[in-house]
Amino acid sequence: MRRGRLILVPNTLDFGIAGAAAPLDDLLPRSTLRAAAALSHWVVENAKSARAFLKRVDAVQPLATPVQGLQMQELPRPPKGGKASIPTEQWQALLAPLRQGLDLGLLSEAGLPAVADPGSNLVAQAHREGFEVLTLAGASSLVLALAASGLQGQSFAFIGYLPVEATARSARIRELEQRSRKEGQTQIAIETPYRNQALLEALLAALQEGSQLSVSRALTTAEAWTRSARVADWRRQPSSLPGDQPAIFSWLASA
Amino acid sequence: MRRGRLILVPNTLDFGIAGAAAPLDDLLPRSTLRAAAALSHWVVENAKSARAFLKRVDAVQPLATPVQGLQMQELPRPPKGGKASIPTEQWQALLAPLRQGLDLGLLSEAGLPAVADPGSNLVAQAHREGFEVLTLAGASSLVLALAASGLQGQSFAFIGYLPVEATARSARIRELEQRSRKEGQTQIAIETPYRNQALLEALLAALQEGSQLSVSRALTTAEAWTRSARVADWRRQPSSLPGDQPAIFSWLASA
Repeated sequence: MRRGRLILVPNTLDFGIAGAAAPLDDLLPRSTLRAAAALSHWVVENAKSARAFLKRVDAVQPLATPVQGLQMQELPRPPKGGKASIPTEQWQALLAPLRQGLDLGLLSEAGLPAVADPGSNLVAQAHREGFEVLTLAGASSLVLALAASGLQGQSFAFIGYLPVEATARSARIRELEQRSRKEGQTQIAIETPYRNQALLEALLAALQEGSQLSVSRALTTAEAWTRSARVADWRRQPSSLPGDQPAIFSWLASA
Repeated sequence: MRRGRLILVPNTLDFGIAGAAAPLDDLLPRSTLRAAAALSHWVVENAKSARAFLKRVDAVQPLATPVQGLQMQELPRPPKGGKASIPTEQWQALLAPLRQGLDLGLLSEAGLPAVADPGSNLVAQAHREGFEVLTLAGASSLVLALAASGLQGQSFAFIGYLPVEATARSARIRELEQRSRKEGQTQIAIETPYRNQALLEALLAALQEGSQLSVSRALTTAEAWTRSARVADWRRQPSSLPGDQPAIFSWLASA
């Protein structure tokens, strides 16, 4: 029997905001839309937004199985407060369609699944069971932000979220700035949108004035914005960051 | 006068190999093709492959300026052997169209410019001169490989190339493995294709048997391949890596 494949399907970067306006082939390549339209079984970060995405797919590339007929499971959320992990059996159960020879799609709310987003445990389980894993072409906001920053793109680290507590956050920013200086490595972090402004201020307070800081938001949309400048310039002429969309923060110490 | 914008244009990941076969809207979103087709001035990694790319664009989205009428400059190559950098005046000269109010495209041979590829100095100069920088939507092979690996995608570092000399390379691999263990950070490296097999063997010799290693190649093409497994499993059942295309190597130490 043919073995199913786990297929990582990129979502757009607009969180469906431009949903009504832009046809989906404006934002994703045709090959990605065709492969997504062929899938009947899905594991998704959020079922509601996944159905909205698949309706947008259907409008440019008719789905093989209508939206209401799709088999869709949500990724389990990590148990609150604590390091308890999700039992392997749960990942195995989500992969059941693969064992029946069916391809299974994995979809996030934005961008690529399993990068700065949940899903890597499911991918790891698929590899452990010897299933083929494919990624379709699509954009990642982290990497677009790095490209737009003009900072070192031959060596960079994505850190994820910084500590929320002010002292720990400053210490972490300085530690990463030191590494950036020593290794010439751009450091990249993200933040929950409503804390965008607070993180920007923390970075401007903690980084040295000769370091470079870049902030990007709403990339690939009509509101796309990137500012990349020395910390001294940011301080002299501050920007305010709206809290409606994720922002991506990159910094690089001067050599 | 309207100020020009520096527009980062993603290329496909197939190095033009699938050129004859796949129409370009199969591989890149329409909005990217439209924006690329509107540009008359370019800075590119390689003029020959850039013209081939723009002919592929033209076939699905007619160019505003025919290929032979495009103004195209190549990115300067870093001076050989030595840390001498390219003088600022050269970057300024490349940006001349922006000062005339013209948009300027930046294009690599594959994937996104300025990420694991030249171009970031040009982007940095554009920011210094206060020009707007935009990135169009497109894929990066690094991030697709990370997604397909199932390794930690909430914290990762792209290292670039490892040392070629065997002792230095092993030492560097072990150092990065230690960081990976301490920080839970996936480490990602690339290699010149003809050294793919040598790097794979070096990784299998230097990494601990409980660490995870993932190798991807030819992503988004019909030959796409990812293997992600424990080092012990790779050793028991080796894979051989062809040297015809770049491969991406990711590893993560067990906690």
